[in-house]
Amino acid sequence: MKKIALLGSTGSIGTQTLDIVDHHPEQYKVVALSAGSRVDELVVQANKYKPVLVSLATKDLADRAAPHLPSGTRVAYGEQGLIDVAASTDADIVVTAIMGSRGLPATMAAIEAGKTIALANKETLVTAGHLVMKRAKERGVSILPVDSEHSAIFQCLNGERAQTVKTVTLTASGGSFRDRTRDELAGVTVEQALNHPNWSMGAKITIDSATMVNKGLEVMEAKWLYDVDYDQIKVLIHPESIIHSYVEFVDNSIVAQLGLPDMRVPIQYALTYPDRQPTPTEPLDLAAIGKLHFREMDYERYPALRLAFQCGRLGQSAPTVYNAANEIAVARFLNGEIAFLDIERILQQVVDRHQVCAVDHIDAIEEIDQWARSVAAKV
Amino acid sequence: MKKIALLGSTGSIGTQTLDIVDHHPEQYKVVALSAGSRVDELVVQANKYKPVLVSLATKDLADRAAPHLPSGTRVAYGEQGLIDVAASTDADIVVTAIMGSRGLPATMAAIEAGKTIALANKETLVTAGHLVMKRAKERGVSILPVDSEHSAIFQCLNGERAQTVKTVTLTASGGSFRDRTRDELAGVTVEQALNHPNWSMGAKITIDSATMVNKGLEVMEAKWLYDVDYDQIKVLIHPESIIHSYVEFVDNSIVAQLGLPDMRVPIQYALTYPDRQPTPTEPLDLAAIGKLHFREMDYERYPALRLAFQCGRLGQSAPTVYNAANEIAVARFLNGEIAFLDIERILQQVVDRHQVCAVDHIDAIEEIDQWARSVAAKV
Repeated sequence: MKKIALLGSTGSIGTQTLDIVDHHPEQYKVVALSAGSRVDELVVQANKYKPVLVSLATKDLADRAAPHLPSGTRVAYGEQGLIDVAASTDADIVVTAIMGSRGLPATMAAIEAGKTIALANKETLVTAGHLVMKRAKERGVSILPVDSEHSAIFQCLNGERAQTVKTVTLTASGGSFRDRTRDELAGVTVEQALNHPNWSMGAKITIDSATMVNKGLEVMEAKWLYDVDYDQIKVLIHPESIIHSYVEFVDNSIVAQLGLPDMRVPIQYALTYPDRQPTPTEPLDLAAIGKLHFREMDYERYPALRLAFQCGRLGQSAPTVYNAANEIAVARFLNGEIAFLDIERILQQVVDRHQVCAVDHIDAIEEIDQWARSVAAKV
Repeated sequence: MKKIALLGSTGSIGTQTLDIVDHHPEQYKVVALSAGSRVDELVVQANKYKPVLVSLATKDLADRAAPHLPSGTRVAYGEQGLIDVAASTDADIVVTAIMGSRGLPATMAAIEAGKTIALANKETLVTAGHLVMKRAKERGVSILPVDSEHSAIFQCLNGERAQTVKTVTLTASGGSFRDRTRDELAGVTVEQALNHPNWSMGAKITIDSATMVNKGLEVMEAKWLYDVDYDQIKVLIHPESIIHSYVEFVDNSIVAQLGLPDMRVPIQYALTYPDRQPTPTEPLDLAAIGKLHFREMDYERYPALRLAFQCGRLGQSAPTVYNAANEIAVARFLNGEIAFLDIERILQQVVDRHQVCAVDHIDAIEEIDQWARSVAAKV
């Protein structure tokens, strides 16, 4: 039986992780859960799974939850609470399904504690890939991707030798506005932006999908997960999101992973790896789908993706600035403060103002992150 | 350096195998070659690669070749010649690129001699899969597929556990006549049948592609290569031949192998497995191709494929009858003796007349094969 600690249990990836657990109750035991501010949902989960530890964002929230928790469940809060959920229990695997850069300290703590990481927190590798992968290697810890694109590449690399990889290609649906020109993007609403054609996801990632920042962050993650150069990472528009990503080898053979868009497949794969188990998902019927379409990525149409490659190549502090500026810009758009295209403008302006500097410790990341946020809040 | 014995060196797969050797001369040494009746081509090859042994179909042909061979090259002929090429040298790997059921004794001899088999002779597994795979296992010999579909499946299974395979799907271009109705097939000519839309192949396999017998033989091969039931084997029409085949796992994740149609990729993969090397082939550009199409196999349109599944399920002598009857029917069509649709009629009639019997030794196959040929020559 695998013991799971789940960071972000009330979010989209979190609840789907628990759905997998529900379908294989004999195989998994949930030992720790963390949520942000959704007290009621966390309490329901705690009474169902009876973890030894739960955590919420603040002391107030933790105090509200405490009277409703089962007798064996302790409650923690804040950054230390997240770290405890990630590292202080006897979990075998930590699913990092929280959004944003606060996932980093908890992930690092889990690595120090020797836990297998099922990584659904993009920012961990984007901002600290060089530190995280080095430490994971030293500790002999596996970092298993949960993202559908990275899980696809991970599956395609099964049994293959790293030095035979020529390129990896991340497919991109094109997001909510893929059929609009840039001129038509000027006046789009938050509601329009949240209407993703293929995937049902959280608000921030849906906006990131429309700006292609999401793909940019995935590009940076891929660099670290698969130890490839940016020149080896390609992005291809594939509106149907059926081919989730693929690897081209030196012999020009391509191995791809396909399926209907359902996050439970990659989530479960991270839990069962290197084995596979039946999932509560629909099989893919290619004859029923009939056609798959592909077209070249247009970096003029999606300048935020071009900027992601630039920041990735710069390395060090640049990806942190890109990511932090984007978090603020998206929040401002969702709050109705700025227009959709301002997200890209803010990203570019914050990156332009930044002097790239070395990042040799995760504490340094926090400082750069805060600087980028403060600038992004104003420009 | 890998030492190669090549059965069928002047055919389509044979010459492409030598093209791979030419691109990596430091990695391969050709130690034995066999051809049928193309004396001049074999002599050119022998003088280029200086194998220790060559073989031709008959003593006459061998005598014609002898004066023109390099001093260190011995010449053999007939069935024993084939067996010697397969088994009597110090080759590490035997590429069985000859067509037809005569590939079986040579392949069995190579297995007995402990050679790795790069299998491009469909009939070996179709007629004797149960005997060949058992003996290969006992001898610890690897059977590596060369066929593009089977190589695709083999690549998709890399690093995976056999018990997690749910289905394997062979893709089929649909052959030369895929856009014609059955009524429109009545009067088609040999020339029309030989015009395959995607692959440049030998005459027999091109006809087999048009009747879907080729896919039927591949279904039977897949059963043995991957130890799956016939219920687990699917066939999907995919006109572009870009997805070469795929595996669906129990978690509904599909892993597929893709590439431009170029046999040199799967041929080389069998030679380099489990490693990969650069190939002299064009990379696949999915954006340039733009669209991939899929539709369900139509077993009314391709009754020979339905019959293949029936014969496969019957097992024992039935696949041998199917294959032998087809060889004769195709030869009669290519000779202008019968119409295209007569191939299917002959297949059905010979199978109908056959009483399925146990096949416990390869000698028994020869007898059944001869019976089916004699019937197919007359009906």
